[in-house]
Amino acid sequence: MEINYIAALGFIAGTLTTASFLPQVLKTIKTKETKDLSLAMYVVLATGLFLWTVYGILIGSFPVIIANAVSFVLASCILIFKIKYG
Amino acid sequence: MEINYIAALGFIAGTLTTASFLPQVLKTIKTKETKDLSLAMYVVLATGLFLWTVYGILIGSFPVIIANAVSFVLASCILIFKIKYG
Repeated sequence: MEINYIAALGFIAGTLTTASFLPQVLKTIKTKETKDLSLAMYVVLATGLFLWTVYGILIGSFPVIIANAVSFVLASCILIFKIKYG
Repeated sequence: MEINYIAALGFIAGTLTTASFLPQVLKTIKTKETKDLSLAMYVVLATGLFLWTVYGILIGSFPVIIANAVSFVLASCILIFKIKYG
């Protein structure tokens, strides 16, 4: 039972960190302003999330794959906006 | 041996995603401009990273604790800047 609570906490934590990028994507779609965003942050973040996804595939962990693949797509959207809008 | 390569990949991925927040912290210290950053992103991200750290403590995983604790501190710095500079 205690293990289930801990697993649930991990699930909630993963959902929050993955979902967190969505408000930035939506804000940037709306404003088309990215001046204050760090290009280096999103280059390094997207690279790291891609490697996390590969790591998840190699260890066969579906939660690691799905959380990082979704985060990678969202962070890549922000990176593309940053490159486009400067 | 193959396991070591996979573990190394996980270590690199974790280092990148954790370190990614540092350029944003440094940029914001320099410019004091946070208009284009999403407040909701950093509220949800910091909350998620805090819960990841608690999860790491509960499962006794030092890599999960350290990666998420450092990320939490950096994301919280950005959140404080956002609240301060608007």
